[in-house]
Amino acid sequence: MASVSRREALLGLSAAAGLAACGSGPGSGSGANDYRKLGVAIAGVGGVVTRDVIPAIQRSKHCRLAGFVSGGSDKLRSLGKQFDVPENAQYTYEQFDRIADNPDIDIVYIALPNALHAEYTVRAARAGKHVLCEKPMAVTVEQCEQMIEACGRARRALAIAYRLHYSPHHQQLVRSVRENELGSLQIVRADIGYPLRGDGGWRLKRALAGGGVLLEQGVYPVYSARTLMGADPVEVLGYETRSDRQRFSEVEETVSWSMRFANGAVAHCAASYTVPANRVWAGGSAGWFALDEAYSLDGIEASTHKGGVRIGQVDQFVLQLDSLSQLVQDGKAPGAGISGMDGLRDVRIISAIYESIRTGGVVTLRT
Amino acid sequence: MASVSRREALLGLSAAAGLAACGSGPGSGSGANDYRKLGVAIAGVGGVVTRDVIPAIQRSKHCRLAGFVSGGSDKLRSLGKQFDVPENAQYTYEQFDRIADNPDIDIVYIALPNALHAEYTVRAARAGKHVLCEKPMAVTVEQCEQMIEACGRARRALAIAYRLHYSPHHQQLVRSVRENELGSLQIVRADIGYPLRGDGGWRLKRALAGGGVLLEQGVYPVYSARTLMGADPVEVLGYETRSDRQRFSEVEETVSWSMRFANGAVAHCAASYTVPANRVWAGGSAGWFALDEAYSLDGIEASTHKGGVRIGQVDQFVLQLDSLSQLVQDGKAPGAGISGMDGLRDVRIISAIYESIRTGGVVTLRT
Repeated sequence: MASVSRREALLGLSAAAGLAACGSGPGSGSGANDYRKLGVAIAGVGGVVTRDVIPAIQRSKHCRLAGFVSGGSDKLRSLGKQFDVPENAQYTYEQFDRIADNPDIDIVYIALPNALHAEYTVRAARAGKHVLCEKPMAVTVEQCEQMIEACGRARRALAIAYRLHYSPHHQQLVRSVRENELGSLQIVRADIGYPLRGDGGWRLKRALAGGGVLLEQGVYPVYSARTLMGADPVEVLGYETRSDRQRFSEVEETVSWSMRFANGAVAHCAASYTVPANRVWAGGSAGWFALDEAYSLDGIEASTHKGGVRIGQVDQFVLQLDSLSQLVQDGKAPGAGISGMDGLRDVRIISAIYESIRTGGVVTLRT
Repeated sequence: MASVSRREALLGLSAAAGLAACGSGPGSGSGANDYRKLGVAIAGVGGVVTRDVIPAIQRSKHCRLAGFVSGGSDKLRSLGKQFDVPENAQYTYEQFDRIADNPDIDIVYIALPNALHAEYTVRAARAGKHVLCEKPMAVTVEQCEQMIEACGRARRALAIAYRLHYSPHHQQLVRSVRENELGSLQIVRADIGYPLRGDGGWRLKRALAGGGVLLEQGVYPVYSARTLMGADPVEVLGYETRSDRQRFSEVEETVSWSMRFANGAVAHCAASYTVPANRVWAGGSAGWFALDEAYSLDGIEASTHKGGVRIGQVDQFVLQLDSLSQLVQDGKAPGAGISGMDGLRDVRIISAIYESIRTGGVVTLRT
């Protein structure tokens, strides 16, 4: 594993620094009503964007849809017409850098295939835009570092779209661990899996996805375990399981892995493009806490050793957008849970799991 | 790891051989009504025996309580009085071999601390008695082999009390995997844990228990995973977690482990004397099947990706006793699922997990 601790510290410092003042932000002492709606341009328009992200922007208080970045001009014209985005806010990938000249766009939401996250985040920052980047942050630790550096240098916000950070179910789970309701946390299980439909699109192509289900979905269990343990793991062991070698010729289908933490606690996780799974479970010396449908946008069910727990659902996407808009207008950098450092940590752990799969043995992570 | 494959084959052969005719058994062609009630002597009378085993014998069709083996003569007298067992069927450990002279006792149920299973099984077989031995079969692979050899040589039945073998919930889970209802099985999770009450008795003393929760309870997840996969794992990685070093000074408190199978599938398991856990989950390319309260005597709940599954509860202890009585009277050896070979396989896997904990790395099992 590359040692990133010293650089991490430096990067963390720059990321935590205040941001450049953003347009007509409310500044200090302003009330919530003073926040204006920041313009969000979406780079990469796949299924999740049209199904979840655009409706969330439309429902949000402090964001508005202000631009598109996509492959072809036909698609851009059609999107622009459908969502009322003017032609001068429609960018092909080649035209993307011209976004610097558009003061109507404050934030670029990077929803491109994983292997393009780094490039477009760096270009967005250089164009003076804040960035909300989908998970996984990037496909290598080095790319994550470049993204943090670029946004830090430009004094622009870099947030990773870890919507779980805004989920009251996940917050309650973390709180019950922090407040010692489960006693000493010893075992975490976190699984995510769904059958990948159709031809799988870019997710099955290594050049675009950067990896398979471990990188694309495994980032959720890694994030959960790390957040619950309040630390990064000190060693990992990963296994790959492939039942369909034709479909999954470039990227992995199912990965199971374990992560040991310095205090002796262990997380067992899995991510799969075929096996349906969707659960987080935390067990301590005084009890357990489980989330079923844990990684879904709604229908999450919480339970503990004492029985079911009723927790209201929220609109994770809207909270994420409004929160970033407010942070930016307050001149604050995204903090723990959604920061570039969080994204980097997860990619670093996932890289170690890939290394373990390659070498067939336990991989130690430097802390 | 000791290579046991050749010896296993030999042992398996002798275990599969027919048993010596047992008293006035029905022989061939007899109907169920002809089975007589075999006499069962219980060696070791702890909480599980008085709470579960004795009532089960009393409810059984083909067994009756016929003797006790226990530490002190006061305890024996009191048990004899309470359960109507004559004085000449009450044995201290020193007197145990005299059981050979008691034709009223057919089967010895070994419910002693784990480290004594081997010695009393061998002595029971030498005394001409059939053996039903509690899990774990013994504390080392060598002990398991000695037990199989002793019972084989004496042509007496050796069954391990894997009551799960008789649970329709576990049967249904295994069937759904065998009949491909879950597609290609890729991930198994099996966890067992309960807070050990009081002073923990012999379970916290290495000399009697032979190990901690991995050996005593971990045998269940190992058995489940092995049965579901239809194979033994090819490698294991184990981690120990200890939150109370005073109480768990001799044996481990919590163990998490992973097992990889030759087909690439992976089982993640845990066993704990502090963390409450009780679940088996199997995930394949076509769906999943879960048992909650999986290792309890009742209240087991089955569910799949399609929803809840209603399965009637049974009396696992009674089925286990009656089944063994019938096998013995039919002159048949206990088969797959309850055989000495099953017990040996599980102890062998558990020994490998202990080795992994000691060495801190992956341990390969020879197949």
